[in-house]
Amino acid sequence: MDLQFLGTSSGVPTKARNVSATAVIEASGKSWYLVDCGEGTQHQLLHTPLSMRDLRGIFITHVHGDHCYGLPGLLASAGMSGRSEPLELIMPLALHEWLRLSLAVSQTYLPFELHLLAVETLQDWRSAQVAVTTVELSHRVPSYGFVFTEINPEPRLDTERLQADGIPRGPLWGDLAHGRQVEHEGRVLDTLTYLKASRAARRIVVCGDNDSPALLAEVAKGADVLVHEATFTEPVLQRSQSNFGHSTAAAVAQFAEAAGVPNLVLTHFSARYQDNPQRSPSIDDVRQEALAHYSGQLTLARDLQRYHLGKDGLLAAV
Amino acid sequence: MDLQFLGTSSGVPTKARNVSATAVIEASGKSWYLVDCGEGTQHQLLHTPLSMRDLRGIFITHVHGDHCYGLPGLLASAGMSGRSEPLELIMPLALHEWLRLSLAVSQTYLPFELHLLAVETLQDWRSAQVAVTTVELSHRVPSYGFVFTEINPEPRLDTERLQADGIPRGPLWGDLAHGRQVEHEGRVLDTLTYLKASRAARRIVVCGDNDSPALLAEVAKGADVLVHEATFTEPVLQRSQSNFGHSTAAAVAQFAEAAGVPNLVLTHFSARYQDNPQRSPSIDDVRQEALAHYSGQLTLARDLQRYHLGKDGLLAAV
Repeated sequence: MDLQFLGTSSGVPTKARNVSATAVIEASGKSWYLVDCGEGTQHQLLHTPLSMRDLRGIFITHVHGDHCYGLPGLLASAGMSGRSEPLELIMPLALHEWLRLSLAVSQTYLPFELHLLAVETLQDWRSAQVAVTTVELSHRVPSYGFVFTEINPEPRLDTERLQADGIPRGPLWGDLAHGRQVEHEGRVLDTLTYLKASRAARRIVVCGDNDSPALLAEVAKGADVLVHEATFTEPVLQRSQSNFGHSTAAAVAQFAEAAGVPNLVLTHFSARYQDNPQRSPSIDDVRQEALAHYSGQLTLARDLQRYHLGKDGLLAAV
Repeated sequence: MDLQFLGTSSGVPTKARNVSATAVIEASGKSWYLVDCGEGTQHQLLHTPLSMRDLRGIFITHVHGDHCYGLPGLLASAGMSGRSEPLELIMPLALHEWLRLSLAVSQTYLPFELHLLAVETLQDWRSAQVAVTTVELSHRVPSYGFVFTEINPEPRLDTERLQADGIPRGPLWGDLAHGRQVEHEGRVLDTLTYLKASRAARRIVVCGDNDSPALLAEVAKGADVLVHEATFTEPVLQRSQSNFGHSTAAAVAQFAEAAGVPNLVLTHFSARYQDNPQRSPSIDDVRQEALAHYSGQLTLARDLQRYHLGKDGLLAAV
């Protein structure tokens, strides 16, 4: 699985970073999922190979504008580009009426079905390749994280079971291996019964805004990658009067270290952190603060950068 | 007065052109007005010297998303940047509820007053420097153009009138020249009475989507600049089944020539027109089609390009 960041700035866009949006890409490299859709997400997509036709679902973590204002434009452009497959959109119930009104008032008629699901009551959402569950976070408004887990990755024939069930080696095995339903001795064989994953399923957790990383304790177990906001560093937080419902790099790094998460990706940086390390505060301050508490593979997300979760279990820029 | 284009593409953004937004800038170079606000307008502003604090009014031509989806994000960011002065927003009545819901549902609380006015009933809107009137256009939905006319440009003392009224030359004249109200022989002198424009007022017409340039016949009289969409060229239109309520470069150029408009700016180009003249159709096809019908100063708007209306009455890139 890959990740491609479409926006890594908190609250407002900067010249270098757009507001929140993250693409989670299947191991096939084609089908993908969008977490959050700040204004300008469709513009960022123009600079990636991701196609709106291959988008399998949109997940919105919370109602703040920097996480959802890009939805009406993204959907309108998807319509104009000729998407015809239904699209599922999982988001806070409060945004459902707003999105419908946004499309209606602008007389935008989509040529595909839009299925709106409430994140508050989402149960085990699945595409053909990926299962998604939610985790409740803590922010100024209700906020969620999304746990993406591969389903049956790289399936191979379960030859032991085939032999035990007396299915003769030959064309039948080939059909099952290609996912085709076959008949044998008058009964239909279910392809899924005879396919099993040839490697462990990957798990990526992509979080919305959150001031309490400890809420991720359960889902962090067995997660390969944790994508979490690090809006502030400790010195900046201490000078301000409030954390505004956000986390510091230190707090997230400490949590990830304790939970044993092998890959930590920080994002959603306050616009005050400059990309130029000569300026203060800089994004390098965020990195140094996290490194002081975390010994795993640390990534500070950059706009449009794609990261690949390799066979060694480590996330690396590609 | 200056113009700076923030988006010149029709319907969808491209890598080179954003969706519609145009800044009209006062002769002072500071205060400005925004016509249309497609998604990503606030991003474009980051690449200009224009400040949200100096914005005096927003005017939306019609309800289509590529002309208004950027409003919630622009206003939210203006709030976060600390704007405190009230802001007037002139737009189709149908968008008022949508904008209020967009801010409310995302829990965006602006630190400035937002005054929503209906474009359908707008009467002679004025700031200190500019008067704005509307003109009805023809599109798939109701669409408007906005006529910006300078008020009393570069005012100088009306010395003839001062002498006729017996106001003695001296400190009183200085106070009036600086716009200060003064008292003379027991009565208050109104500064506007004794100031008059030292040059003709400039007039710039910025239009929304429109398939009937002839509707501009009245407002084109005396206009210095006409900014109008040229979504298609004639050959492209002939191949499609519909004009979708838009104009061709030829139709707009013919109108501007007949109306004697000295400066014509075309914008809102279909994304099919490539900036690379080696590709077909290219933006150069639009230019050639317009040039065949128009002998004035022709400009094809480019994103982020600023244009100055000079003392010679001609618009030029700066």
